[in-house]
Amino acid sequence: MKIAVVAPSCALKRKAAEAVKALVRARGDCEMAIHPQCFLSEGHFAGSDPQRLAALREVMADPDIDAVWFARGGYGSNRIAEAAMVGLPDAARSKTYMGYSDAGFLLGGLYKAGIDVAWGPMPQDIARLGGEAAVTRALDWLVRRDAAALEPRLEAPAAAFNLTVLSALLGTVLEPDLAGHDLLIEDVGEHHYRIDRTMFHIAASANVRGVARLRLGRVGDIPQNDPDFGRDELAIVEEWCARFGIPFGGRADIGHDVLNRVVPFTTRF
Amino acid sequence: MKIAVVAPSCALKRKAAEAVKALVRARGDCEMAIHPQCFLSEGHFAGSDPQRLAALREVMADPDIDAVWFARGGYGSNRIAEAAMVGLPDAARSKTYMGYSDAGFLLGGLYKAGIDVAWGPMPQDIARLGGEAAVTRALDWLVRRDAAALEPRLEAPAAAFNLTVLSALLGTVLEPDLAGHDLLIEDVGEHHYRIDRTMFHIAASANVRGVARLRLGRVGDIPQNDPDFGRDELAIVEEWCARFGIPFGGRADIGHDVLNRVVPFTTRF
Repeated sequence: MKIAVVAPSCALKRKAAEAVKALVRARGDCEMAIHPQCFLSEGHFAGSDPQRLAALREVMADPDIDAVWFARGGYGSNRIAEAAMVGLPDAARSKTYMGYSDAGFLLGGLYKAGIDVAWGPMPQDIARLGGEAAVTRALDWLVRRDAAALEPRLEAPAAAFNLTVLSALLGTVLEPDLAGHDLLIEDVGEHHYRIDRTMFHIAASANVRGVARLRLGRVGDIPQNDPDFGRDELAIVEEWCARFGIPFGGRADIGHDVLNRVVPFTTRF
Repeated sequence: MKIAVVAPSCALKRKAAEAVKALVRARGDCEMAIHPQCFLSEGHFAGSDPQRLAALREVMADPDIDAVWFARGGYGSNRIAEAAMVGLPDAARSKTYMGYSDAGFLLGGLYKAGIDVAWGPMPQDIARLGGEAAVTRALDWLVRRDAAALEPRLEAPAAAFNLTVLSALLGTVLEPDLAGHDLLIEDVGEHHYRIDRTMFHIAASANVRGVARLRLGRVGDIPQNDPDFGRDELAIVEEWCARFGIPFGGRADIGHDVLNRVVPFTTRF
């Protein structure tokens, strides 16, 4: 099992990279190659659009690589995702791709193209307090498809997205068919009024209305609403599901935290 | 000319209401009725959804009212906009509606229903430094269609939206046909990376790609991006227009400020 790490959004920290390398060495059950592009910096991003795209396409096309692991989120994978899907080589189709948060733009586009992807922890998560467990969980699934790493109530087919990312990819070429899916959402750093507005937007989508059920992961670091919004994220999501006839399936064990579980976008759990 | 003020989003401040009343009295060319609903409060909103909806539908249905002026933005008009459009009485169709920011959800839905709407300053704007000029501009246009109040480079048909609001109404029942429009956008309080992500989303829309040209108003109160995003809002909008083949028409004289101009969504300037 050979895993390539690239950063289509923001740069990976050197310290996090070293910690993940040490963890991989200690496991001894996989090889990991962190692409030098992960440490580039251009403004907000891990290098320019052409640099991030070139690294991504390089590892996608490499037949020796079994899995592509996105280094971290932040913002920016949407800027190169469409170009990454053009003329996909066969080697790109036979590997697994993992990440979450902003990487959802790529997961969406790749899944739409019929490729195996999974929502799951990323290398930069090792910098969180207790982050080794998250990274270990991701590797347990990547290397040996350990079912203990999975979100515990998944019903195939499933998909997971950051709510704000899902909202931004609706109507774009990256939007996959979610019909009949167990759709898990989560978010971080958004006011309650923004969560409400974003739920209004996604619940209006015919694609989202076609899911089997929608489940809510954790919504972290919610800034204080002034005045208080008057309902929490659970009430917000339940209300929009009820308004648009989307079956609400309760909570989900995903989020921007070290407990974040793996959600493969396939029918094979 | 009788103008009704209602608050489909957040509550109007008493002090702002008094100041606008005094300004209207001094003009002597119109009557203004501020609906008591404007001062209700339920959490984030100027009263509950049913309360805000009832006030809006009441003034829409009143044949003695010539114009409905939205008191202020904030958030929440999307929660009642679809219900507001159901079974519109004739009296609702023969008046003008004005507002901006969050009121864009209503402007979009009403315009889609074939009703005259206009982007323009709102009563709460009087609380801004120099806000009397903004409110006077709005009234000059509402009462006597003063061309000096208009955004100076409009080409019919035109429409104006807060970028984030436009993004959230795409794909919903409130989305109007923007084909061939002079589309003006602006925003406030959004990081550069969010503006970039939102532009990615709206530029992917076939509806938005059908505009005659897209113009950028002011983007105010942009929080510091860390690290610096590396390009400003003008470069961001120009880039996404270029990527998706949308003619970029330069800057527009609208924004969340006292210089904000009027943009009627009609072919009659």
